[in-house]
Amino acid sequence: MNYGALEAGGTKMVCAIGDENGKILEQVSIPTTEPKETIDRMIDYFKDKEIEALGVACFGPVDLRKDSPTYGYITSTPKPGWANTDLLGPMVRALKVPAGFDLDVNGSLLGEVTYGASKGLTDAVYFTVGTGIGSGVMTNGKLLHGIIHPEGGHIQIKHHPKDTFGGRCPFHKDCLEGMANGPSLIDRWGKPGNELKEEPLVWEIEAYYLAQAARAVSCLLSPQRIIFGGGVMHQKGLIDEIRDDFKEMMNGYLRSPYIEDIENYITEASLNDDQGIMGCIKLAIDAAAKAK
Amino acid sequence: MNYGALEAGGTKMVCAIGDENGKILEQVSIPTTEPKETIDRMIDYFKDKEIEALGVACFGPVDLRKDSPTYGYITSTPKPGWANTDLLGPMVRALKVPAGFDLDVNGSLLGEVTYGASKGLTDAVYFTVGTGIGSGVMTNGKLLHGIIHPEGGHIQIKHHPKDTFGGRCPFHKDCLEGMANGPSLIDRWGKPGNELKEEPLVWEIEAYYLAQAARAVSCLLSPQRIIFGGGVMHQKGLIDEIRDDFKEMMNGYLRSPYIEDIENYITEASLNDDQGIMGCIKLAIDAAAKAK
Repeated sequence: MNYGALEAGGTKMVCAIGDENGKILEQVSIPTTEPKETIDRMIDYFKDKEIEALGVACFGPVDLRKDSPTYGYITSTPKPGWANTDLLGPMVRALKVPAGFDLDVNGSLLGEVTYGASKGLTDAVYFTVGTGIGSGVMTNGKLLHGIIHPEGGHIQIKHHPKDTFGGRCPFHKDCLEGMANGPSLIDRWGKPGNELKEEPLVWEIEAYYLAQAARAVSCLLSPQRIIFGGGVMHQKGLIDEIRDDFKEMMNGYLRSPYIEDIENYITEASLNDDQGIMGCIKLAIDAAAKAK
Repeated sequence: MNYGALEAGGTKMVCAIGDENGKILEQVSIPTTEPKETIDRMIDYFKDKEIEALGVACFGPVDLRKDSPTYGYITSTPKPGWANTDLLGPMVRALKVPAGFDLDVNGSLLGEVTYGASKGLTDAVYFTVGTGIGSGVMTNGKLLHGIIHPEGGHIQIKHHPKDTFGGRCPFHKDCLEGMANGPSLIDRWGKPGNELKEEPLVWEIEAYYLAQAARAVSCLLSPQRIIFGGGVMHQKGLIDEIRDDFKEMMNGYLRSPYIEDIENYITEASLNDDQGIMGCIKLAIDAAAKAK
C-alpha cells in the first residue's frame, strides 16, 4: 500500500510516499511559494502515485476542528499570502482520498511515538526549537488539539539572571519563543547558533529557558517523555544542560521512575529529522483505516 | 441508587451519599487524624448506606496507576503519619464495592464538567488556590493522569516587578505555589488574605501569578475553559484581575471564540464548594457502570 505524506513548512513542502510500516519509499521537496502554485505542484506529485490516503502536518496556526467550515486551513499566519489558505481542501478534492490533518509538531510527535525511540508511549510532549518554538502533545494515546492546538512557545518564562536581552516575540516580547528561538540568538549575541558553539554562556541561558518549558509540561501534563527537536538542538551538549537544569529546578519534587531515568525523560528526537514526514505517513494510515 | 463519595483532605474527610444525578443526599465531615482511626470512622459511616460504589478524590500526591502495587495510596505527602498510606484498599475491602480513585483537583474538575456550569466540556483545567496550589486536567473527555498526575502549582513564574518576596515552597521557593498560595500572603504581607481585602497591590501581584498559570495551560493544553477555585479565590474581583492580566499578557495571540468569551474562559467554580464531593459521586457512578 502507498500512503501520501506532506510535511508543510514555511520554506518547503516535503512530499513523500510511505508504506504501511512507515518506511519512506520516495521523497521530494517543493519550495513554498504562493499557495496556488505550491498546491498545484504537490497535487501533480501525488496524483499518479496511487495513494490510499494522505497525511498532512502543517505549520500553524491551523484549523483542526473537523466540524469547522475552515477545517484544513492555515489560519492567521504572518507568512505573506498564506493566511486563511485552504491547504487540505484542494488536495483532497484533486486526489480523492481520505486525509488526516494535524499541526506540524503533533506530526513529529506522532512519528516519534509510532516509529521512533518513543514507540508505544501514550503521554508525551515534543518541542521544536528553531525559527519558532512549537509544541506537540499526546495524552492518553491521542494527539491533543483542544480549542486550537498547543502553542507552547508562548508561555511566560523567568529571565536568566545574566540575560539582559528583552525578547523578540512580536506578540509577547519575552515569552519562551521570544527568548529562546534561533533568531533570539542572533538578536542577543549578533551571530547565529552555529557560530556560537564555543560560548558556554549562550547555552547556559538557552538551557535555562528550555528547562523551564520541560518543567511546565512536567507539572501540567505529567508525560512519560519530553522530546526536543529542531535546529537549535543541534548544539552538542545542550540536551544535557537542559536535563541538569531541570533536575536542579525540580529539586526531586516529582518522583517517578520515568523522571529518574532522565536521559530518556528529556531526550532528543530519534529519527534523524524524518520524524515529521513519518508522522504524516501515520496520519495517512490512520485516515485510511478510519475510512474503511 | 446510593453512591458513596469521599473527598479526602488534609484537615477533614468529607463523606457523602449521592444519587445517580449527582445530588448530595447526606453529608458528614470527619476530622483527618491518624490514618487507621480516620479510615475506620469513614468505613463506619458508609457501611450501612447500601452504596453501589465508592468514589474517592484525595489530596496528593497519590498513586493513580491501576496496575501499581500502591494504587490508591497517598504517597510522599509531608502530612505527618499519612505518607505511604493505603487509603482506598481498606475501604474497598470493608465495603466490598467497586471504587473510583483520583486526585482531589481532578475530582473538582469532574464535578464542574458533570454537574456545574462547565457541563459537557471535554478539555478543561481546574486550579485550586488555597493552602497549596493544585491543578486538575481533562483532555479529550478524560481526566489526565500521565505518569503521576498534574502538579500545576510547581511551574516557574516570572516575578512581578513590585514583588520583593522570594517565595516559600520548600522545594522550589518561587514556583507558582511558593509565590501565590494562601500562606505566601501571610509571609509577604504579615496577614492572611481575608485581612488584606482593601490592599490593591496584594491582588495585583496575586493576579499576575495566576494569570501566568492560565497562560501556561492556555498555550500548552488549549482548553475550552480554565476554572479557579479554592479559598484565595474568595477575594472579590480577583477573577477579573486574572482575566485582565491574561488578556494583556496574551496580547490577542490565540484566537478562538472560547477565549474571546473571557468571562467563561477564565472563570470561578460554580458549585458553591460542592464541586469536589459531587465529582466523587461521579467517580462512584462511573466505577459502578464499569463494574457491570
